[in-house]
Amino acid sequence: MINKHQPASNPPPAGDVRGVTVSSPATVANVVCGFDILGFALNSPCDEFTLALSDEPGVQIINLDDFNLPTLAEKNVSGASLLALLDETPDVKGFTLYSKKQIKPGSGIGSSAASAAGPVVAANHLLGHRFSKQDLVRFAMFGEKVASGVKHADNIAPCIYGGVTLIRSIHPLDIISIEAPPLHVTVVHPQIEVRTSDARQILKQQVLLKDAIKQWGNIAGLVAGFIKGDYDLIGRSLEDFIIEPVRSILIPGFDEVKKNCKSAGALGGGISGSGPSIFMLSRDADTAKAVEVEMIAVYEKIGLAYQTHVTTINMEGVKIS
Amino acid sequence: MINKHQPASNPPPAGDVRGVTVSSPATVANVVCGFDILGFALNSPCDEFTLALSDEPGVQIINLDDFNLPTLAEKNVSGASLLALLDETPDVKGFTLYSKKQIKPGSGIGSSAASAAGPVVAANHLLGHRFSKQDLVRFAMFGEKVASGVKHADNIAPCIYGGVTLIRSIHPLDIISIEAPPLHVTVVHPQIEVRTSDARQILKQQVLLKDAIKQWGNIAGLVAGFIKGDYDLIGRSLEDFIIEPVRSILIPGFDEVKKNCKSAGALGGGISGSGPSIFMLSRDADTAKAVEVEMIAVYEKIGLAYQTHVTTINMEGVKIS
Repeated sequence: MINKHQPASNPPPAGDVRGVTVSSPATVANVVCGFDILGFALNSPCDEFTLALSDEPGVQIINLDDFNLPTLAEKNVSGASLLALLDETPDVKGFTLYSKKQIKPGSGIGSSAASAAGPVVAANHLLGHRFSKQDLVRFAMFGEKVASGVKHADNIAPCIYGGVTLIRSIHPLDIISIEAPPLHVTVVHPQIEVRTSDARQILKQQVLLKDAIKQWGNIAGLVAGFIKGDYDLIGRSLEDFIIEPVRSILIPGFDEVKKNCKSAGALGGGISGSGPSIFMLSRDADTAKAVEVEMIAVYEKIGLAYQTHVTTINMEGVKIS
Repeated sequence: MINKHQPASNPPPAGDVRGVTVSSPATVANVVCGFDILGFALNSPCDEFTLALSDEPGVQIINLDDFNLPTLAEKNVSGASLLALLDETPDVKGFTLYSKKQIKPGSGIGSSAASAAGPVVAANHLLGHRFSKQDLVRFAMFGEKVASGVKHADNIAPCIYGGVTLIRSIHPLDIISIEAPPLHVTVVHPQIEVRTSDARQILKQQVLLKDAIKQWGNIAGLVAGFIKGDYDLIGRSLEDFIIEPVRSILIPGFDEVKKNCKSAGALGGGISGSGPSIFMLSRDADTAKAVEVEMIAVYEKIGLAYQTHVTTINMEGVKIS
């Protein structure tokens, strides 16, 4: 399985047996009432990573995109994840990673999670699948820490597992796959910067018990709605009394986007991750497209640059190409 | 369907076509991490109510037990529920209710809910099932208000619907039946008084966001565990970081009961309703009996009178006899 050092100047040719290429998806975390515990993977956009075993110790990173991300492994999200994996693979010297990101950093749809998760899934493939998905989440959390200072898993888990995932507990790590009916997702990324650390700082450390009760009623309803495939229940449960009222003020146009998208038929939605992207869930593709039209109208009116994605929930997570 | 005035001095003879007898079950509310939103019904104990239509206006109450509950309809839990139903049935003059309670008031296993729910289910049967289950919950909430001052539904809903029920929202009322695998329930009722109002007052109005996040991770896990029939997930999710640490100090022996019952194989459990009863869930009947032995041992040692119930989850709720 161990192969020779991979020349670093160019990506390996397609079909090169010494490397593996993966597609690592964007993800939505903090799903409305599921702050810090619920996320799901998207079918697009996806990052592309090619990983090869190397005889040089550590992780060599070659960026094939224009994001100018750090190439020092310890400072790079993918690098830090792979270094954590290398700590538990004494028989492996190092890796060379070719990184071709499509998911904009800072968009709120799990750009750093895709960087953290894709390479460790690729590594596990090269190493004969010796690690469990939960191990891979654990390694990738070291990458998330580089990105946001916090070892959270709510983007990484759906990125690796696919579908909708619940992080019931972070210590100990307990990830549960939640079945869901077919769902269409529309995302708008207004091109402003909301730093995860700022979005976290603005939250109150204490919440009213009566609001917390409403929130856990809704998350219970949302999980039941997903597993039962009850679209109406999913829609009714997509309410957030705690995080959204505070964070949405950082996102221009949020209230109007939400109101207009629901009028256009969306089941509901909210802030993706810590923003600024906003996501909406719909029952069918036509509604998801109508929702996109509403999103575009709001940001055209405001005069703020934006990007949209109309996609579906990705059921398999990081995929070997 | 309307029948003649029922003589009030004695219960109607069995099989009397002018009346109907129902069995109204005990319930467990505030299921650990599901404070104020999750409950389930028990197969025992149950109250028995016989209801007959009457030509006298209002509700006449005849107690056939030794609990000395009020007989003035407005002050009686069953009476208040039936009066709420009468408000929406202008074609009906009144009812005579024969009440034979088995569930001790103040035990924390939904004695007032059984009193509120049983009679309105009986009335709906006599009136040709003109009301939905949700309507019946709405009427019975007037009875709960007489008992505790609050129109909560987390005991009434499982009492009427059977099984495990989620109150996703109280305004508007949104009740969701949650499928669950076979579960055995052991309850111990230490014979001390914990008033619902006191148990509510002792709660803090604010909670830490980090604790609330753990709580909604657990309720999401518990609902997923129930619907998937995943006993281990149910067990792992039965944690309460918010209510139990505060309320359990009102219940002598709580920590020891919980610890010993889990050592004996219980999946987990906690305070039933607002206490003082403690419930434990088990996978099989033998474990549920072993759990009862542990509960008895704790209260024998403390020297506190107690009552135990070893039963299963009641899937049908109030039952017409």
